[in-house]
Amino acid sequence: MKLFFSPTSPYVRKCMVTAHEVGLVDAITLLPGSAHPVKRDQTIVSNNPLGKVPTLITETGESIYDSRVICEYINARGHGTLLAKEGPLRWEALTLQSLGDGILDAALLIRYENNVRPEGLRWADWVAGKLDAIHTSLTSLNQHAEVFKHDFHLGLLTVGCALWYLDLRYPELDWRKHYPALAEAAAGVMQRPSMTQNWALPA
Amino acid sequence: MKLFFSPTSPYVRKCMVTAHEVGLVDAITLLPGSAHPVKRDQTIVSNNPLGKVPTLITETGESIYDSRVICEYINARGHGTLLAKEGPLRWEALTLQSLGDGILDAALLIRYENNVRPEGLRWADWVAGKLDAIHTSLTSLNQHAEVFKHDFHLGLLTVGCALWYLDLRYPELDWRKHYPALAEAAAGVMQRPSMTQNWALPA
Repeated sequence: MKLFFSPTSPYVRKCMVTAHEVGLVDAITLLPGSAHPVKRDQTIVSNNPLGKVPTLITETGESIYDSRVICEYINARGHGTLLAKEGPLRWEALTLQSLGDGILDAALLIRYENNVRPEGLRWADWVAGKLDAIHTSLTSLNQHAEVFKHDFHLGLLTVGCALWYLDLRYPELDWRKHYPALAEAAAGVMQRPSMTQNWALPA
Repeated sequence: MKLFFSPTSPYVRKCMVTAHEVGLVDAITLLPGSAHPVKRDQTIVSNNPLGKVPTLITETGESIYDSRVICEYINARGHGTLLAKEGPLRWEALTLQSLGDGILDAALLIRYENNVRPEGLRWADWVAGKLDAIHTSLTSLNQHAEVFKHDFHLGLLTVGCALWYLDLRYPELDWRKHYPALAEAAAGVMQRPSMTQNWALPA
């Protein structure tokens, strides 16, 4: 398999952590992907018309995206146990994945606003709305920290990648200080070998 | 079940079309949801910290979101056939759903830019990037119109809802004229009873 890759994309990271968990990292060749909301990467576009990373290309040439689909695919390919096949735990894991992705969507939109958009065109209310969504999400996770007692699954993996991204891009949020129950409950997830690994393009 | 609802949200529409397909519309009570990126709806936030529609509340009080999770849940609850349990058709359907959702994400961001953001803070390059993503996606669908020959599934349902939304908000795009193979192939999907239905909040 080949994967359009960026080392700082949290959505790419979800896929690599999944591959690590199910023992498929060596089956994936990383391809450079410079996804950008304005200067679109045409190499990606020819495989995924949305022009986004991650995009996976299977051995038979099929394109699979986005990260949710790739994670489920890699888990199935590796006979993993990261997603219950049915029942309440499946919906809990998928909804938690959705929450983690939502935190990331908000964090990315803040970054586009503050780092990509020309300075004179930035809108503080937009950033405030996204930041509020991050905080209401962290508050909810802090209140329901018992979800981290479940066996590791795609929902916890995604929330872990979201917290990894907050550490990377928004250290000043200091989420561990403001959400101590979450920090304590998530520590085990954050310290898994798959979650502390770093990947890079081949030299 | 209860669903936070907005008649013009294409993501809500995905859920209602799914419910119609599997015969569960009458099992769902619609709740008003005024999701807004800046003025966040606190009633939704207390059930889904991301504050977005659709959010589903099950009979046992669990919150399920976003639209992808709700559609899969409703399909499973209704013993539907809208998503293959495994194999290549599952990944094709899910990737097509991702493409449809990506068109919608781009369309929504254009709308926020042009209708919500103060006029002096709008960035033409941002809109152009999103519009380009919509066009490369429609071009790809136009080139691979054979996917519409499959039995109806969540991927085709999502693409259909994306095209419905383009008709609603961007009639000037005139996608049928510019992507005639897609228009012809998608006509059957667009004319399904579930896809032509309209829903409203109870009076």
